[in-house]
Amino acid sequence: MRISELARRGGVTVATVKYYLREGLVSPGILTSSTQARYDDSHVARLRLVRALLGPGGLSIAQARAVLGAIDDPHDDMFAALGTVQQATLERTDGTDTSVAKELVESAGWRIHPESPELALLAEALEALDDADFTLSPQLLRTYLDAAEGIARAELDGLPSERSDALRYVVLGTILVEPVLLALRRLAEQHVAAERLGIG
Amino acid sequence: MRISELARRGGVTVATVKYYLREGLVSPGILTSSTQARYDDSHVARLRLVRALLGPGGLSIAQARAVLGAIDDPHDDMFAALGTVQQATLERTDGTDTSVAKELVESAGWRIHPESPELALLAEALEALDDADFTLSPQLLRTYLDAAEGIARAELDGLPSERSDALRYVVLGTILVEPVLLALRRLAEQHVAAERLGIG
Repeated sequence: MRISELARRGGVTVATVKYYLREGLVSPGILTSSTQARYDDSHVARLRLVRALLGPGGLSIAQARAVLGAIDDPHDDMFAALGTVQQATLERTDGTDTSVAKELVESAGWRIHPESPELALLAEALEALDDADFTLSPQLLRTYLDAAEGIARAELDGLPSERSDALRYVVLGTILVEPVLLALRRLAEQHVAAERLGIG
Repeated sequence: MRISELARRGGVTVATVKYYLREGLVSPGILTSSTQARYDDSHVARLRLVRALLGPGGLSIAQARAVLGAIDDPHDDMFAALGTVQQATLERTDGTDTSVAKELVESAGWRIHPESPELALLAEALEALDDADFTLSPQLLRTYLDAAEGIARAELDGLPSERSDALRYVVLGTILVEPVLLALRRLAEQHVAAERLGIG
């Protein structure tokens, strides 16, 4: 297909496709003349992935490039790719004291790399609660840990066996599912609150 | 205490306290002269709450004002206050087709107001997945719904009985707990992935 059809099927403008091509986020088509190239379904799939990362995923061009690099690198194993995706989508948080966060994940029996940037993320989130004098009860923390582990197990159960499918699943599952989970929690809170107040 | 001690205990500068006072986010102290006022522990607590909302909570001044208004309004019941908090922290999403999101929450037996902005939020998150050709299996969706409901029940179980404590709990629990949950999910994914790959 030509670039115009690629753009239409990817849901973007031709100018946007050209921009992604220049930025190396979408691989070039096969040249059919000095000014024209042909694209195939793999380009459509990549274009949609890029759009998801930059749009709802909220990644910058540089972050998207790092994530796509992990998908494209045949030497990366799944675990390394997962790490790249997670790091690409996190702010750097050097120098955060992660001791409380480490204790918490150890209490759940999770084995986490001590330099994992998510530990720093968790530490900062817990510190913000602490700064606001907000204490999570041990039961509530236990509920959060159990819920997170249950979710992670169900997600890993669904991991496709083919490598590039699996990486796509990890990338989109990490980034695009977060807003789904946050929306569901807020809706569940509304439901439970209404139920207890005898409304609805 | 004087404004300098209030600032110190609240972890901000005096200029920041003055800014919050001007914006009406913190109530005035009791004037002891034409240029000096005295503050008490309730001002420290409010200052920390404002800092949490504007900092880690990521709210704008206008959003924080709406949330604090819900806390301060003695006529608002808990459910109305919860609605105000949730709406103050959401982008407006008029015109979104919420039919798929409605079906999903109905499948879980949740009774949600059809105009709830969180339904639009969920609809947009699901649409982004759909645009990226990413399908969540029915089992995984079930896991997400169950996890969200379990979390909401545990959270509502911990609701303080005193009204202003309860509202503070709802506000901070809604806004500041989200990053905790997202960090825990990512850490649980690392743990489960490492476990399955026999690492660690």
